[in-house]
Amino acid sequence: MKRPTIADIARRAGVSKVAVSYALNGQPGVSEATRATIVAIAEEIGWRPNSAARALNGARARSIGLALCRPARILGMEPFFMELISGIQDELSAQSHALMLQVVRDHTEEIDLYRRWWGEGRIDGAILVDLHLSDPRVAVVESLRMPVVVIGHPSGSGPLTPVWSDDSAAVRETVQYLAALGHRRIARIAGLPKLVHTVLRDRAFAETCAELALDGHVVVHTDYTGEQGARATRRLLSAPDRPSAIVYDNDIMAVAGLSVAQELRLDVPGDLSIVAWDDSPLSQVVRPPLTALSRDIPAYGAHAARTLMSLIAGEHVPGFEDAAAQLTTRGSTGAPASSRP
Amino acid sequence: MKRPTIADIARRAGVSKVAVSYALNGQPGVSEATRATIVAIAEEIGWRPNSAARALNGARARSIGLALCRPARILGMEPFFMELISGIQDELSAQSHALMLQVVRDHTEEIDLYRRWWGEGRIDGAILVDLHLSDPRVAVVESLRMPVVVIGHPSGSGPLTPVWSDDSAAVRETVQYLAALGHRRIARIAGLPKLVHTVLRDRAFAETCAELALDGHVVVHTDYTGEQGARATRRLLSAPDRPSAIVYDNDIMAVAGLSVAQELRLDVPGDLSIVAWDDSPLSQVVRPPLTALSRDIPAYGAHAARTLMSLIAGEHVPGFEDAAAQLTTRGSTGAPASSRP
Repeated sequence: MKRPTIADIARRAGVSKVAVSYALNGQPGVSEATRATIVAIAEEIGWRPNSAARALNGARARSIGLALCRPARILGMEPFFMELISGIQDELSAQSHALMLQVVRDHTEEIDLYRRWWGEGRIDGAILVDLHLSDPRVAVVESLRMPVVVIGHPSGSGPLTPVWSDDSAAVRETVQYLAALGHRRIARIAGLPKLVHTVLRDRAFAETCAELALDGHVVVHTDYTGEQGARATRRLLSAPDRPSAIVYDNDIMAVAGLSVAQELRLDVPGDLSIVAWDDSPLSQVVRPPLTALSRDIPAYGAHAARTLMSLIAGEHVPGFEDAAAQLTTRGSTGAPASSRP
Repeated sequence: MKRPTIADIARRAGVSKVAVSYALNGQPGVSEATRATIVAIAEEIGWRPNSAARALNGARARSIGLALCRPARILGMEPFFMELISGIQDELSAQSHALMLQVVRDHTEEIDLYRRWWGEGRIDGAILVDLHLSDPRVAVVESLRMPVVVIGHPSGSGPLTPVWSDDSAAVRETVQYLAALGHRRIARIAGLPKLVHTVLRDRAFAETCAELALDGHVVVHTDYTGEQGARATRRLLSAPDRPSAIVYDNDIMAVAGLSVAQELRLDVPGDLSIVAWDDSPLSQVVRPPLTALSRDIPAYGAHAARTLMSLIAGEHVPGFEDAAAQLTTRGSTGAPASSRP
């Protein structure tokens, strides 16, 4: 199986490759009849000018890159990424652009990929996700002078264009709400500690707990899987000074935490209040349904894609702050039984 | 922002573009010192041979195409596609290949996309999903002589290489199990009627119900959304001759159907048994947890990607039959209350 080439057209038309090239590029040197024959053959065998030739003519790749540095199997479990990708696709497909998606092992592989994709004209730009503290990708991508949008907080995106939402505000709202219900010991089961947004959430959590002079607060870091969420929950709930409320960094861990509470015969929300970050169908189908920090993740992806398309079009875009996650209260949160009359 | 070109290197090195070309292609005509300078500059500014030049040298695009003809927002809700993509990625990333993903409106747009991607050397092959009856994509893709794997039954894939699983066997097993429990009226809430696998499941369902001489069976077609699943369930359960068991074509609809049963104060499984097709975390976190037709969807995607990589490598591959879905019984199925002593 082989792509049709100019040589194939030349053979069929019984002319030289140079004649085919003249004919297809609209240059003089072939008769109109020959040109018509050559164009007809090119059409028939599905010949297209190759992507480099198009790039030389200023044509775009009509695709953007997204590298995901997470195990592929975890991506299938995590509604966040599929919703983000669906939102990116929603915007791209409206403009007939494709998404180049590749799972990478580490930042070194990711950086090599951007060099190759950009250098070979395969993408017009890229969306960077999962911003790390002192992220090595930022400086490299900047040096490539490739249009890039970072989904992440401006404090970590350097000179690149950020699309972000204010996670600190969402954390504050959650802790204040739990404190208002009467909770004094609140725990946070968080994601990877090296991610910028984890650090920002950790900081807002500690600050708000301190402002409200809560008795104790604890943060446990995990890899976002249900297994680690369940294990962290079991450890917290088996300790003598167990929390009366836990805030989770995703919904998979919150659902796993609910199962652990039920296994330990703790009443939710009487003995334990649960808040999930991100609101997928999962949070709504469990009993009790979970109070969650809801946001429109497909819209977040669409905003990132739209911002990138503007950068690719040569516009100056300072960045885009998306709406902060909003607390949607459901049956999993309430006053702690110990504080009830 | 612009990709570095040979002209940029020539300018920096103070030599002609022809000299740069000689140097980078290892041809004689430049001194070794000049060649070293030119190579160093090319490296420094991130120059890469463009994709057409690589293609002419027989290099691969190192990416494969996947077009999805579903609204992008539905893809975010449907665990099947994300799990399939994660399995495809798992296999591709092991071989450092990317996935070109694009959401299309219809088959015409999808066919145009394949012509462009293949003609321009952007992909080495493609995976076709959601096979339709008399699918127009099959003949066109065959005429492009592009390596293609169809995720779908051989009865619909024409001369293309199919990767499939035996849905009829799974339907038969499910109906026989429900009949053994004592169910006489079984309904099926199915997906889109124009899809090959829907037709095969419909046929196996009708045949097995007939073989077992069940009282009545009914099939309702939907678009796979929770809304249509709920509406179909409500209509079936409000009818005078309501079924005592419903088999759903995905888990989103089965979970929605469970909510409708609870809203109508029907006991599950006493008044209604529920079986979901595909077994995501959703089916396991509801109460009662759902009996489901489980299969390893990431493995299915990985098999499709591996088969495609073999085709791209020029091997002859007849196709691959994956394991059929297996019935995993949980609390949502049981003997109908009416048949109990």
